[in-house]
Amino acid sequence: MKDKKDEDGDLVTPWDVTASSKKGIDYDKLIAKFGCYRITEDLISRFERITSQKAHPMLRRGLFFAHRDLSLILDRLEQKKPFFLYTGRGPSSGSLHLGHLIPFVFTKWLQDVFDVPLIIQVTDDEKFLWKNHTLDEIKRMANENIKDIIACGFSPDKTFIFLDTEYMCPSFYTNILKIWKLVTVNQARSIFGFTGEDSMGKAAFPSIEAAPCFSSSFPLIFGKREDIPCIIPCAIDQDPYFRMCRDVAPRLKYLKPAMIYSSFLPALQGAQSKMAASDATTCIYLDDTPKQIKNKINKYAFSGGRDTVEEHRKYGGNCDVDISYQFLRYFMEDDDELESIRQRYANGELLTGELKAIAIKEVQRVMTELQNRRKEVTDEVVKSFTVPRKLKYDY
Amino acid sequence: MKDKKDEDGDLVTPWDVTASSKKGIDYDKLIAKFGCYRITEDLISRFERITSQKAHPMLRRGLFFAHRDLSLILDRLEQKKPFFLYTGRGPSSGSLHLGHLIPFVFTKWLQDVFDVPLIIQVTDDEKFLWKNHTLDEIKRMANENIKDIIACGFSPDKTFIFLDTEYMCPSFYTNILKIWKLVTVNQARSIFGFTGEDSMGKAAFPSIEAAPCFSSSFPLIFGKREDIPCIIPCAIDQDPYFRMCRDVAPRLKYLKPAMIYSSFLPALQGAQSKMAASDATTCIYLDDTPKQIKNKINKYAFSGGRDTVEEHRKYGGNCDVDISYQFLRYFMEDDDELESIRQRYANGELLTGELKAIAIKEVQRVMTELQNRRKEVTDEVVKSFTVPRKLKYDY
Repeated sequence: MKDKKDEDGDLVTPWDVTASSKKGIDYDKLIAKFGCYRITEDLISRFERITSQKAHPMLRRGLFFAHRDLSLILDRLEQKKPFFLYTGRGPSSGSLHLGHLIPFVFTKWLQDVFDVPLIIQVTDDEKFLWKNHTLDEIKRMANENIKDIIACGFSPDKTFIFLDTEYMCPSFYTNILKIWKLVTVNQARSIFGFTGEDSMGKAAFPSIEAAPCFSSSFPLIFGKREDIPCIIPCAIDQDPYFRMCRDVAPRLKYLKPAMIYSSFLPALQGAQSKMAASDATTCIYLDDTPKQIKNKINKYAFSGGRDTVEEHRKYGGNCDVDISYQFLRYFMEDDDELESIRQRYANGELLTGELKAIAIKEVQRVMTELQNRRKEVTDEVVKSFTVPRKLKYDY
Repeated sequence: MKDKKDEDGDLVTPWDVTASSKKGIDYDKLIAKFGCYRITEDLISRFERITSQKAHPMLRRGLFFAHRDLSLILDRLEQKKPFFLYTGRGPSSGSLHLGHLIPFVFTKWLQDVFDVPLIIQVTDDEKFLWKNHTLDEIKRMANENIKDIIACGFSPDKTFIFLDTEYMCPSFYTNILKIWKLVTVNQARSIFGFTGEDSMGKAAFPSIEAAPCFSSSFPLIFGKREDIPCIIPCAIDQDPYFRMCRDVAPRLKYLKPAMIYSSFLPALQGAQSKMAASDATTCIYLDDTPKQIKNKINKYAFSGGRDTVEEHRKYGGNCDVDISYQFLRYFMEDDDELESIRQRYANGELLTGELKAIAIKEVQRVMTELQNRRKEVTDEVVKSFTVPRKLKYDY
C-alpha cells in the first residue's frame, strides 16, 4: 500500500491512522479532503426533535462529528420509511479495546433510538488478506470479538452479526459482483492507495465491505427484496469504502448509504495516534481489571498538566491534549459536571492526579457494565445473533 | 485488456483467439509459450493400457493434444486413488455450437472411462463482468447452455453443474480468498493482460475460475474434506487460469490440478479463427436442423480443393486447411475410413462436393444424437444436476 499522507503529515486510511500534531488529526482538513460534512448544531437539534431524545454525549460533544446524508435518514425516520444500521469490525486478537468499543456503544444507542435492524459485518477475510494469520486463528479471534460486541447490549431480535467467510452466499456475492464491475483497478488504486504489488484479494476486497450497504445482500434477514437504505456509524477512516459505494449506488439503482463518522479515540500516550491493539500499552481492554485500568491511566495517560504543582496552579492544564479529559468527553454523561471539570483543570484548580482519578472512575464504570454483560454471552447467545434469520422489523 | 499477440501474430487468451496463418494457430509455439507438454504416442498408449479402452478419436488424432500432469492422473488411476474431472462454460446466448460442445463430448467420454465425479462451473459472473448483459439475461442463457451440456450424456449421479452466483458459499469463497492472497495484481496483469482500466471484478475473477480445482470447495459434493486432485479437459486458451492455480497449489498444501487441452474447432470459414457464437455464419449450432447443417457446410465450409475439377483431379486437395475434412477428424470414428478419405481427397479422386457430403452426414449424425437427448432435458432433469448433493463416488 502506498502511504497517502496529507501535505501536513496526517495519515488516515482504513489501515493506518497517525497525526503529525499533539492535538491529533486535523478533522476539518479531513472533512474537506474526503468531501463529507460536519454535523452542525442545527442537525443535532433536528435529530433530537425527531427522535424525542437528547443526543448521545458522543454526538452532542462532536466525537461523532461528520456525516453523509444523515438528514435524509432523519427524513425517513420522520416519514416512517424503513432503513437499517450497518457497521463492522475487522477481527483482532484478545479483547476489544475502548477504541473498538466506541462505535458499538454508539450504534447500540442509535439502534434503540431509531428502532431499526442492525447488520454487523466481521471481516475475517480482510484480516486474512492483510495479515499473516490462518483463517482458523482469525475465526477464533472473531468469535471472541463478537462476544465483546454483543456485550454492548444489542438485541438478537434486530441484530445480525456475520463473518464474511461464513455468510458468503448468492445474494451477497451478486452485489459484490455488481460493485466490482463499476470500479476500475485504477480507481480502486486512487481511492485506497493499492499498488501492483498488493494481492488480487486486496484489490477485490473494497467491494466486499461495500456490498452490505445494500439490503438485497440479505433477503432472508429482511424478509423482502425491497431496496432500503442504511446508515453506517463508524470511524472516519472507513470513508473510502462508502464513498466508493455511494458513487456506484445510483448506477445500480440502489439507494446511497448514509454515514455518521466518529473521530478516533486517542491512544493513552496522546492524540498523535489512535488506540491500537498492536501496542497494548496504548489501550484499555474490555478484560482489564479495575486495577489495571487504574494503573494504565495513571502510568500512561498523556497529561495536559504542567511540570510542577506550582506551575499548574499558576497556568492551568491543557484539556485539548489531556487524554484523561478526552476519555471523560466520551463517557461522562453529565454535561455540567464535565464543563466544571474542564474549567477547574484549565484554571489550575484541579491537578492531573485528581483529573486522572475522575477519569479512572468513569472508565471503570463503563467497563464494569460491559464486563458484567460480557459474562452472560455464551456460545448459545452468539448463535442467536449469527444464525441467518428474519429480523424483527415490520415495514 | 491488452492484446498479447505472439511475435508471429497468433493471439490466444481466454477471451480472444485468432491465428495469422490459414493453417490456424501454431500449437507447437503455443505449447512452448505456455510451458505445457504435447501428448505423445507413448502417453496415449499408456492411457489405453491403463483404461483398457481405445483412445477417443479426439485424443488419438491429436485434437486433445497438450497436457500438464496427465501422467500423474494415470498413476492415480492405476493405484486406484481418487481424483475428479473439472471443466466449465461461460454462458452464451442461444444454442451451444460445435466448438462449445467438443470439450463436453470428450469430457463425457473421460468420465465414462475414469468413472469419477465431474464438476462443471458455469461462469455467469465472468459473462456479467466482461459483457453488457443483466445477470437475469445471463442466467437465462446459462440455463439453456446447461441443457445443451446435459445432452452430452452425463450422469446426474456423478455430475454437479453450478452457476457461480448460485453456488457461492463459504467453502468456495474460502478457496477464492486463499488464492487471492497469493497472487499480486502485477502477476495477474502479466498472466491475463489486465490493465488499470479493467474493472476490479476482472482482476478478482481468475481466482474464481481457479478455486474449483480444489475439492475442498465442495465439501457436500464430495462428502469429505480430503484433498483430491482434478484433471481439467478444456481448450488451451484457459491455460493461464490453471497455470496460476498450479503455481499457488503447493503453497496452499493442495494438490496441483492436471490438464488436458484441446485445440480450437475452426470456424466454417477456415482455421484462422475458432468457431465463435458472435458470428453465426462461422458456427453449426446444436439447434440447427439437418438441412441448415447441410446448407452451412455447403455454403461456408472453407475448401482445400482446387478451383476447377480438372485442376483438382490433377493436383489434389489440401486436407490441412479443408474444414470439412477437419470436422471428420473430430467426429468420424473409423480410422481406416478417415485415412482413405484423406488419401482420396489429396490425390484428387474425391471432389470437394463429395467430401462435403461425407462431412455433412457425419455432423448430422452427431448432432441428431445430441438433439434427441436434448429433447429429454426438462427443468426437472436440470435440477437433478444442479442441486448441491453428495455425488456417487466411494473412495
